[in-house]
Amino acid sequence: MSKLRVAVVGAKGRIGSEAVRAVEAADDMELVAALGRGDRLETLTEAGAQVVVELTHPDSVMENLEFCVRNGIHGVVGTTGWTEDRLAKLTSWLEASPGTGVLIAPNFSIGAVLTMAFAQQAARFFESVEVVELHHPNKADAPSGTATRTAQLIAAARREAGCAPQPDATTTALEGARGADVDGVPVHSVRLRGLLAHQEVLLGDTGETLTIRHDSLHHSCFMPGILLGARRVVSTPGLTFGLENFLDLG
Amino acid sequence: MSKLRVAVVGAKGRIGSEAVRAVEAADDMELVAALGRGDRLETLTEAGAQVVVELTHPDSVMENLEFCVRNGIHGVVGTTGWTEDRLAKLTSWLEASPGTGVLIAPNFSIGAVLTMAFAQQAARFFESVEVVELHHPNKADAPSGTATRTAQLIAAARREAGCAPQPDATTTALEGARGADVDGVPVHSVRLRGLLAHQEVLLGDTGETLTIRHDSLHHSCFMPGILLGARRVVSTPGLTFGLENFLDLG
Amino acid sequence: MSKLRVAVVGAKGRIGSEAVRAVEAADDMELVAALGRGDRLETLTEAGAQVVVELTHPDSVMENLEFCVRNGIHGVVGTTGWTEDRLAKLTSWLEASPGTGVLIAPNFSIGAVLTMAFAQQAARFFESVEVVELHHPNKADAPSGTATRTAQLIAAARREAGCAPQPDATTTALEGARGADVDGVPVHSVRLRGLLAHQEVLLGDTGETLTIRHDSLHHSCFMPGILLGARRVVSTPGLTFGLENFLDLG
Amino acid sequence: MSKLRVAVVGAKGRIGSEAVRAVEAADDMELVAALGRGDRLETLTEAGAQVVVELTHPDSVMENLEFCVRNGIHGVVGTTGWTEDRLAKLTSWLEASPGTGVLIAPNFSIGAVLTMAFAQQAARFFESVEVVELHHPNKADAPSGTATRTAQLIAAARREAGCAPQPDATTTALEGARGADVDGVPVHSVRLRGLLAHQEVLLGDTGETLTIRHDSLHHSCFMPGILLGARRVVSTPGLTFGLENFLDLG
Repeated sequence: MSKLRVAVVGAKGRIGSEAVRAVEAADDMELVAALGRGDRLETLTEAGAQVVVELTHPDSVMENLEFCVRNGIHGVVGTTGWTEDRLAKLTSWLEASPGTGVLIAPNFSIGAVLTMAFAQQAARFFESVEVVELHHPNKADAPSGTATRTAQLIAAARREAGCAPQPDATTTALEGARGADVDGVPVHSVRLRGLLAHQEVLLGDTGETLTIRHDSLHHSCFMPGILLGARRVVSTPGLTFGLENFLDLG
Repeated sequence: MSKLRVAVVGAKGRIGSEAVRAVEAADDMELVAALGRGDRLETLTEAGAQVVVELTHPDSVMENLEFCVRNGIHGVVGTTGWTEDRLAKLTSWLEASPGTGVLIAPNFSIGAVLTMAFAQQAARFFESVEVVELHHPNKADAPSGTATRTAQLIAAARREAGCAPQPDATTTALEGARGADVDGVPVHSVRLRGLLAHQEVLLGDTGETLTIRHDSLHHSCFMPGILLGARRVVSTPGLTFGLENFLDLG
Repeated sequence: MSKLRVAVVGAKGRIGSEAVRAVEAADDMELVAALGRGDRLETLTEAGAQVVVELTHPDSVMENLEFCVRNGIHGVVGTTGWTEDRLAKLTSWLEASPGTGVLIAPNFSIGAVLTMAFAQQAARFFESVEVVELHHPNKADAPSGTATRTAQLIAAARREAGCAPQPDATTTALEGARGADVDGVPVHSVRLRGLLAHQEVLLGDTGETLTIRHDSLHHSCFMPGILLGARRVVSTPGLTFGLENFLDLG
Repeated sequence: MSKLRVAVVGAKGRIGSEAVRAVEAADDMELVAALGRGDRLETLTEAGAQVVVELTHPDSVMENLEFCVRNGIHGVVGTTGWTEDRLAKLTSWLEASPGTGVLIAPNFSIGAVLTMAFAQQAARFFESVEVVELHHPNKADAPSGTATRTAQLIAAARREAGCAPQPDATTTALEGARGADVDGVPVHSVRLRGLLAHQEVLLGDTGETLTIRHDSLHHSCFMPGILLGARRVVSTPGLTFGLENFLDLG
């Protein structure tokens, strides 16, 4: 079987250089180009890239993707900063290049994406749901974006299912003890030297609890999701937003 | 809204008496009968039961269900001992009573059922998967039936997806250290005074792990699943095998 | 070897009746009396009790202990409400009855006591320490008394060792996300249906974390500590406050 | 306060180069030398080193320590391969150089050392104790050396306290399900991509469990122990074997 021809754009960054190594290590892929800032985009067509992994910056991502889509090169995009406007522009390029696909994912960690998906599926079956996220102490925001998003998805699933508010008989509490309230879902943020990024969704009902826990121990945790995206995007024309769409979750 | 009229058969047993309490406590249900060994089945029709929760014994379950189905009473069945023959017989009764539904579930714990479902969904996305189950030390079998079943479902999902065998460089091992091998999935059984029934599915790939953990802390953990079954079976004619079919997992 | 002759006072209560069963089940003990409200204290001397397990009420505990100590019967006391005054009175009775011992313990769970002791020992060796406590949703106070006490012990150990404040770069936080502040130690309170009483102490430093977790799954968790107290108090004259003193922690 | 003058020998290795960075980052230390293979030992005296962190190889450690001890330089030693003979030789050097101290530690992770210490302290108070260790799948041995050592310490503590054998009613087991037997303590080895080195000691008794868990997320986890060793060894003449001796565990 011929190998998938993959290029990395933004290959000098921390995640980009991991991506270069991951593509090189994958049996079914060939790394055909690795571009840094200032390198010519034409290298991608000259090298015959089928998929570009785009890990640059909001300032350059649109130019890079316009080039790729126009040349029928599929894209797997980790760069952030997507607005309605930008998505509309990208969609119009894709319409003009039928057969070409682009995957944009806010999070390429398969574990994180599955945690959110499972939390959503389970949320309505339990009286109680809380989120505990644990990160290194250099993190500036609390809760983490992922935890906030997870809590919002849980809250939406419960609202849709008509769940009652969570039981909580607390009458005497120290300020902050019961966590932050995100749409009715308590979220607790632990900051601990030695940790990287971790999240637990705790669900409880009569006599039982279900815990879904995701641990990121190294930033290479995005690589399996990026490779999966590259393999799948070549047969998924148009725009796909979110890695969960490639996880066949039904 | 009128309440669902529910009866419990096998109401004196440990799980049966929990079910009586759970139905009584449910806002949307009315307990219309609670039958023990030797009680007349006609009580069920006289009481106008819409759903019977059947928690008896393989010796009596067929007679009880035949009566219910013939009288258009839906069934939620926790009794075990189902063979092909028995299922065929039940199916024929249901065909003769269109509109009547029966749910048979080997496990009414929603947490346990979701753990298995999520493990199946996630299994193919991770290089490594192992199962650790933890129970009280009076348990006779190791691994537990649930853990064995979970490992089999994981193995099947990986086989179907064409996953490679799990990485394991172990060359020097004490006998038993790497657990039991269930279709290529290592399963470890912990027996600890103080525990009831607990299970962890551990999945790992580059830089991250995902853990799905179910804790049964009390045998009342079957009640939410039994009530859910009763609410859903009334609009699900025919035979449904497994609570997962009522969890809308897609 | 002759068995230890044990009586339970307050034998009809939830914990008291567990204690009756636990003493009966212990190979090295004999239950010689089980007194409820209104029963004559003389039964204790007539039955030849060596140790009394006192599980009653602040209203009756002083009278009960005065009788025991005067008659040279040792005491294991779970009743609360101890003031300086009461302790002084008890101490004076014990001085008048040399050889008699009384153990008062705010918590008879060996796991809870060890969790606090280990947290204290470990606290000064890690840059970061936080406490997560998890209870059923009917609990009125947050954090739990045990979690507050644990955090205070941790804070005291760190102060004594001259530890720096914990690192925390949080600049943007939802209210409550970082938990309650107990003497500089963040404490997070989770309330989840299905749980009983659980506590985790999380300690982190460069590249590693240490977690000490205590799970109470049933209120019988106090029994091993009560039996241990009864075995040890007979050779420990005078007043002992806290089960930790019988755990040989050095 | 003047800073502690520290040198690293074996400064080019993976752990050695971490140690160089850790000493440089410590407020109370000054890195005065960093020697690699072939560098002159005299550099240590010329630089005025007070403590040498020795992270080399069994082939060179004896020569290095002889030089240090003869010159009154204290040692913190992570190099392995210690035999009775070698320890005797080192002890004789230390006797000839009163006031000089050497710490040899098989494990410089404070978390790992505390886990073992706490497991030992707790072991006799619980009916059941098991060990689960979890590592990356490239590990050759199962169980890990640390887990085996932990189980042996637990078994010794229970033997000394006269504990009964652990309860286990297993009559039907798949081979390996109940783990490896290390002196009567079951040990389970999980191998999972994404993990580094993790260990859980699970203790259970009536109604409660206590879990002590150590997670190594990065090999920098040895640094806090090495720095602690350097700070303490300067006032601890003679040979100290094991970091636990510097943790004031009573």
